Order: sequence, then structure tokens, then C-alpha cells
Amino acid sequence: MGQLILLRHGQSRWNLENRFTGWTDVDLTDEGRAQAWRAGEDLAKAGIAPTLCFTSVLKRAIRTLWLCLDATDRMWLPVTRDWRLNERHYGALQGLNKAETAEKHGDEQVHIWRRSYDIPPPALDADDPRGPWTDPRYRAIPRDTLPRVETLKATVERLMPLWTGPIASALRAGEVVLIAAHGNSLRGIVKELDDIPNDVIPNVEIPTGIPLVYELNEHLRPLDSRYLGDAAAEHETPAEVRRRAAGGG
Amino acid sequence: MGQLILLRHGQSRWNLENRFTGWTDVDLTDEGRAQAWRAGEDLAKAGIAPTLCFTSVLKRAIRTLWLCLDATDRMWLPVTRDWRLNERHYGALQGLNKAETAEKHGDEQVHIWRRSYDIPPPALDADDPRGPWTDPRYRAIPRDTLPRVETLKATVERLMPLWTGPIASALRAGEVVLIAAHGNSLRGIVKELDDIPNDVIPNVEIPTGIPLVYELNEHLRPLDSRYLGDAAAEHETPAEVRRRAAGGG
Repeated sequence: MGQLILLRHGQSRWNLENRFTGWTDVDLTDEGRAQAWRAGEDLAKAGIAPTLCFTSVLKRAIRTLWLCLDATDRMWLPVTRDWRLNERHYGALQGLNKAETAEKHGDEQVHIWRRSYDIPPPALDADDPRGPWTDPRYRAIPRDTLPRVETLKATVERLMPLWTGPIASALRAGEVVLIAAHGNSLRGIVKELDDIPNDVIPNVEIPTGIPLVYELNEHLRPLDSRYLGDAAAEHETPAEVRRRAAGGG
Repeated sequence: MGQLILLRHGQSRWNLENRFTGWTDVDLTDEGRAQAWRAGEDLAKAGIAPTLCFTSVLKRAIRTLWLCLDATDRMWLPVTRDWRLNERHYGALQGLNKAETAEKHGDEQVHIWRRSYDIPPPALDADDPRGPWTDPRYRAIPRDTLPRVETLKATVERLMPLWTGPIASALRAGEVVLIAAHGNSLRGIVKELDDIPNDVIPNVEIPTGIPLVYELNEHLRPLDSRYLGDAAAEHETPAEVRRRAAGGG
């Protein structure tokens, strides 16, 4: 009945520099822009026409959406920007080089911060100038709602009201929903859709700039999911990761 | 109390080709894109920070807004796209060359179509493939609401519910509203704000790509209005046109 397209933003400058990004508002690289444009072309080739869009308030996701809409000649689509689709907040690690952080804290610790479901990295201090409470884009959000750091679990939890509310309503109304967002906010959505356990979801890798298309039934459960484009076959869908983890693949 | 920024889209391909555009979805030229970027820079230089945006569903206005938001690093702002901000629908003239149309129908007739407040050009036939009812972006709008042609008067009338509703509400709530739109839909707004008579408003020329900033009191009446940027002095504001027309300038 419903169709949902998930699109992780293309390569960002800090992906390239191997830095923890989180809520830092870095832009796409030229390669990231090209990926986003191709994502739009792949949607058009597959005959998939989104009718409604959601994205985060971070420019790497917004620009990915813009380029995708431009490539499909659908710049007129309604777009909702919502902070709850933001990347996981990486706390005091934001801005740090991943390799240097591993040298300082040890590979194992950094692996735990990156790959555990509910163990947080160090939080921002309450007076840290990187705090989202200093940024006008978050001015309407109560200070105690804004994170100083997030686990993947916390990311999923703040996303859920947006998913079960406006996004689910749109899908039930027959809209073809396109969500341009981030690795961890999209993990939240595929965790819910594909019923992926807490210990498996940190290992689900959603590739950048490749549309992931779900066909949903009337209860918004997946009938099918697939990646689009030339590189589709290189990537396991979240459902395939779950089956493999359960020993079924 | 309130601040409102009006921005007419930059030069489009059909501005350049001297064709009647109306609701035809033509894109900006490179010059038009540069104008839109400069508009953003001029806003930033003037220290004006929009907090909420409205635009039409036509790409020349949307792209103007995108470039302006990009130049001001405010891509995260909420944006409402609404067909009621579209350009005046030019009926059967859409797509025709203005000079050729003048040769065929006479200069005087074309002048009347272009410059009268309430005399319509020829309408689209109900089965014209250019009809907006064939375009998915208008699918939610009742067929008998969609125009086959519009006068400036009709353009103003369909715009007013958006102006007195969502836009006025946002201004009253203290939002700094940026509207990226078209020559005739913006005429509708300045007609209302500056109380410009029907016979004067067709002669108010709003330049492309130059922000027009209104300072408004708590009743949303203008305290002041001005153009921004290097070319500001070359253009009469709508209020100045009204005063000149009344013999006061």
C-alpha cells in the first residue's frame, strides 16, 4: 500500500576528514553532491515519484534532499525539516579526529562509543560553545530536551514520535514519503520497520546516497525492501543483516 | 514590531527569451542564480535574519529561495510552498513570444492584457495540455479552483487567504518572514501593505533578486520599506510609486 524511501546524505567534508560529526553542520563534498543527484536519477529511473519529504535541520541532509528533488524535477514537493531526524549527537567527541581519539582513549573504548546501543561517549559541558542551545535553529526546543550527548538508543527514542506521528500519518494517507537523513536516525527507522534487535542495529550500515525503498502494507509493515542504482547489489539491506545475524542467511 | 522580506525570483530563461511565462515552470538563468545568491549576501550584510519562509510551487522562486538560504547559511529554516504565491496565470498566452503576440494582436491589446487590473487575456481551453489540472503538484486543489487564466485582480484575490492567514499569523508571532515569489503575487502583497490603488498597482515594478524589506507595526501596517543592496537606489519602492501617482512625489 505505502512506499517509503530512505536516503542517507552523501559524503560530507568530515566523513572525508574522518572526524566525529554528530550535530556539527558540515556540508557535502563534491562527491557527496554527485551522489545525491544520482540518487534522484535512480528514483526517476525506477519510476518512483515521492510526494512528501522529511529531512533533518542539518545541511548535509537538506542539500542531499535538494539535489535529489532537483534531479527528479520535484522541487515543489512539501518538505518538513525536523531536528528529530538529526544525526546522533556525539557529545564531546564532535569535531575530534577518529584516529586521534582512538589513540587517546584506546580502540576498544572508541569502538564501544561508536558501536554500543546504549553506552554514551562523554557529554558536552553545559557551557560548551558547541551546545545546540546556542544555535538559533533549536530555539523553539526546550533546553532540557536538547541533548549534550546521545546513545543510539536515545537517538531512536527522540525520533519515534516523529515516526509514529507525522510520517506514519502521511504514509497511511497514501503519500510516497522520502526521508533524507543520517546514518543513526535512519537506523532508528529501519530498526522499527525490520524489527532489528538492539545488539544488531549498530552493525547495520546504510550506504550514503543510495535510496533504500520499502514497500509497506496497510499496517506499515515491510512487504519488501531494496536499494536502487548500480551499486545496489553491493549492500545488504537491513532485513538481510537481521536474517544473517539470526543465522538465517 | 514585525519584519517582512519580499524577494522576486532572479532572471528566468523565459525572461531572457521574452516569453509569457505565468505558471510555466521555467528555471533561472546563471544570472538569475547569481542574483539570488547576492540577495542572500545583502540580507546578511544588513543583519536581517529570516526565521520562516514562504514560496510558490514554481522552481524559479524555489531555487531563488534555496540560493538565498544557502548564502545566509540558513538552509534549516522552515519553508512553506503554496501555489497561491504562484505568478499570475497567463492563460493561452503562456509560452508565446511577447513581440510576436504584439504583432498578432496589436501593441494596444497586449498592453491591456499586461497592464490592466481586471481584463483577462484569452483563457486556456479546458482540454489544453498546459492546464494546471494535468500537473501532479496541483492534485490536491479542486479542479474548479485552478485557473485557466488570471487577471492581476484574480491573482490578488487567490493570494489574500494565504496573506491574512498563515503569513499574517507568523508575523504576529514575531517571525521574520521571507517570501520568495513572482512579480504579480508580490504586487498583491505590496498592494495590500502600501494601500496601492487598482490603477496604479500594474505599474509597480518589483526588480528581480533584490530584497524589499518592510518594517511593520503591530497591526502589520508598514512603518518603513526599502530595497537592499548596491542597486537599491535605482528602484522606487511601491510606497514611493503610490506617492508619485497621487501627485505627492
